[in-house]
Amino acid sequence: MNIVVWNENRHEKENPEVSAIYPEGIHGAIANFLGEEFEHVKTATLDEPEHGLTEEVLKETDVLIWWGHMAHDEVEDEIVEKVKQRVLEGMGLIVLHSGHFSKIFKTLMGTTCDLKWREADEKERLWVVDPTHPITEGIGEFIELDKEEMYGEHFDIPTPDELVFVSWFEGGEVFRSGVTFKRGRGKIFYFRPGHETYPTYYHEDIQKVIRNAVKWAATTNTPVPVYGNAQPLEEIK
Amino acid sequence: MNIVVWNENRHEKENPEVSAIYPEGIHGAIANFLGEEFEHVKTATLDEPEHGLTEEVLKETDVLIWWGHMAHDEVEDEIVEKVKQRVLEGMGLIVLHSGHFSKIFKTLMGTTCDLKWREADEKERLWVVDPTHPITEGIGEFIELDKEEMYGEHFDIPTPDELVFVSWFEGGEVFRSGVTFKRGRGKIFYFRPGHETYPTYYHEDIQKVIRNAVKWAATTNTPVPVYGNAQPLEEIK
Amino acid sequence: MNIVVWNENRHEKENPEVSAIYPEGIHGAIANFLGEEFEHVKTATLDEPEHGLTEEVLKETDVLIWWGHMAHDEVEDEIVEKVKQRVLEGMGLIVLHSGHFSKIFKTLMGTTCDLKWREADEKERLWVVDPTHPITEGIGEFIELDKEEMYGEHFDIPTPDELVFVSWFEGGEVFRSGVTFKRGRGKIFYFRPGHETYPTYYHEDIQKVIRNAVKWAATTNTPVPVYGNAQPLEEIK
Amino acid sequence: MNIVVWNENRHEKENPEVSAIYPEGIHGAIANFLGEEFEHVKTATLDEPEHGLTEEVLKETDVLIWWGHMAHDEVEDEIVEKVKQRVLEGMGLIVLHSGHFSKIFKTLMGTTCDLKWREADEKERLWVVDPTHPITEGIGEFIELDKEEMYGEHFDIPTPDELVFVSWFEGGEVFRSGVTFKRGRGKIFYFRPGHETYPTYYHEDIQKVIRNAVKWAATTNTPVPVYGNAQPLEEIK
Repeated sequence: MNIVVWNENRHEKENPEVSAIYPEGIHGAIANFLGEEFEHVKTATLDEPEHGLTEEVLKETDVLIWWGHMAHDEVEDEIVEKVKQRVLEGMGLIVLHSGHFSKIFKTLMGTTCDLKWREADEKERLWVVDPTHPITEGIGEFIELDKEEMYGEHFDIPTPDELVFVSWFEGGEVFRSGVTFKRGRGKIFYFRPGHETYPTYYHEDIQKVIRNAVKWAATTNTPVPVYGNAQPLEEIK
Repeated sequence: MNIVVWNENRHEKENPEVSAIYPEGIHGAIANFLGEEFEHVKTATLDEPEHGLTEEVLKETDVLIWWGHMAHDEVEDEIVEKVKQRVLEGMGLIVLHSGHFSKIFKTLMGTTCDLKWREADEKERLWVVDPTHPITEGIGEFIELDKEEMYGEHFDIPTPDELVFVSWFEGGEVFRSGVTFKRGRGKIFYFRPGHETYPTYYHEDIQKVIRNAVKWAATTNTPVPVYGNAQPLEEIK
Repeated sequence: MNIVVWNENRHEKENPEVSAIYPEGIHGAIANFLGEEFEHVKTATLDEPEHGLTEEVLKETDVLIWWGHMAHDEVEDEIVEKVKQRVLEGMGLIVLHSGHFSKIFKTLMGTTCDLKWREADEKERLWVVDPTHPITEGIGEFIELDKEEMYGEHFDIPTPDELVFVSWFEGGEVFRSGVTFKRGRGKIFYFRPGHETYPTYYHEDIQKVIRNAVKWAATTNTPVPVYGNAQPLEEIK
Repeated sequence: MNIVVWNENRHEKENPEVSAIYPEGIHGAIANFLGEEFEHVKTATLDEPEHGLTEEVLKETDVLIWWGHMAHDEVEDEIVEKVKQRVLEGMGLIVLHSGHFSKIFKTLMGTTCDLKWREADEKERLWVVDPTHPITEGIGEFIELDKEEMYGEHFDIPTPDELVFVSWFEGGEVFRSGVTFKRGRGKIFYFRPGHETYPTYYHEDIQKVIRNAVKWAATTNTPVPVYGNAQPLEEIK
């Protein structure tokens, strides 16, 4: 299984607070813990040619992880279109935190993907609401994060195929924090936590969820639909 | 449209704190505000013959509202079975608060319907997560209740057909507070608030939601499926 | 309630077979039977300025019906974007038949919306699989059309919010023919039948379904979400 | 992983036509092909003590497969209740063909599970409508069975969590043939084909689907919810 962790990698370059937490970048931190379990983990970032997502890379990728925030607009439409086609063909996609506003997530959802937010060092609890889901393997009834950015409803997404986590925030908001979608032959998982100024991606349970999500989203040998003009009726009868 | 508000009506008889809040019973309070909009609103209670749910009553009922808590076991299985058949035939059912543990709700769900709870005068916020749903007409982004009993996840229900409200509680829990289900030709709405020691059913927005739910759940002229041995193939060809 | 029936209106101009069936255009035929029940029904077509969908028209429209086929590419992106925003704001959208490949449907779905097809004068049966749904009011267990174009699975759409009809075709295919989606505050119904060379829109049950869908999809007074920076924590506590 | 294949095993004893096709019983045929891939496959039948489903057996079972038809009523309620509790605890359940009317399926669904049927040696095509689903791994766009009993809509089940297969039948009917449900911590797959007078369970693709379903439904290490009185508020604050 080939995994690519994509990150815009801008906060890390511009904000010492962020680079202190993630000296190898958010992509580096995620690739590190994935590398403990999976053999083929690469990273790609916005400032590489074709954002590191060449056709060759995409063709071989089974699961793509996406983190972006301040530079969504700099991602070229042509690359977004290629990523979208690969998702529809069967590549898994895991969209993290502020990636809710990425071009790739919005075009796959068809909605604004807007939400409420507040930066106030709030406690967050992610409650499991689907204890059958493989993405929840190995964790308890909830994950508690001492400090995170708040995201609150309404979250303008289509009805998820599955609702896995619902977050509680100190200030009075709730959020559908772990949601799955099917698009074409591809499986998508959106996972809320991971603001750049908190060490969220070092939290053991957050790492477990992302590892589980990689396994859940990976391309498998399911049928490839054929479209267009069907077999003539006279040949059938 | 014929509406029946069913209540076990026991807390009201045994606990002066409850009867002070609901002098005409919880059923009376609900029937009163429904009566302002709908013409045919009746009540029925546990201690009436056949719990007030005779075949004749059920046959003519379009929407049944259910409140029960301390006496679920006293509801006769035979009556539960008749109510279930009417739901499957097309009668709407609105289950309130502690009705989550009623025989009728459990048999229609197929699960334990268990949950976490705490009585601590907590603040509750019911956030709308489906702003297309007719059950949310006329209310704002959330409903706030100063004091309510807490219900927390995990709520052991099947995946709802629609998730309309998610509750936030002061103590750190969340709950899927407004959920819809389809069973047979019947539509079911479970709505969390309404502990007997709080004046919840006098809250204007709670009343709006229940009124909206009645309209949403009411029996309509949809197709009646035919089951069993189908038309022979030779007659078709 | 303001209804607009949009049609590209090209087959009618170029193919005498089609204009013989629909002398006032497909939009005219649909507007006629809607006009029997609803007071404010207008039409709009591709060749009008802004395709007849000016901001003023869109602003006042509660339900938009869409039929297109041979000229999807001629619909301007800017107009598509305005229609999309109105759907997300709460305008209902009913997409008919070959409208599955329209820009507006594809951008709201996030998938290719591709399918199999065959023109062979095949019998179609649309089976009701959700007998609770208001869109099925007044019809029987299935609708039978003597001759229609075949559309077959796989239909590349996201998992529908509700599956209302499944079609059977003589040649061996099935199709999810009546499906609902929620996007933003808007409700969307895709309904398969209506190839331009058949008198499908004169069929009584097809007319009933479209009338029911208009009522189901119409804008209502549900909450308008507020997005962005939320109330500061210190004001809450 | 421990798998138990349960069969009422009555047609095989009473009808030579059936025992000629399945000399080791339907359970034997299914256990045989599962045994090629999985190590621990047992069978259990109606006429064994406790129907072969003792507490000890159930406790260790990860996936239970259920085939029944003529003797649903002979399955003891007490055993059904124990099976149900194990499903809610996390045991996977695969219900085959006429098992739609089994006590265990009906109690988990909460509906009648009724349908249309016809025995007429009809051709069936099971179309894949969810090409992301692991249950479809290794098969093509559809499975064709030359002769099967027809099951037709309306199928009176709750809205499935996932719709994987839709069947087409020669005589004009369709059927939701492969559907998944979540109940408690358990995953359920209903799969339509397998009438006792046809060699359906020897069909390579049918075997693949059942093998895939076993892997999909198997118990995993997901969170175990805790219910009841929650932590006091004063301890939290």
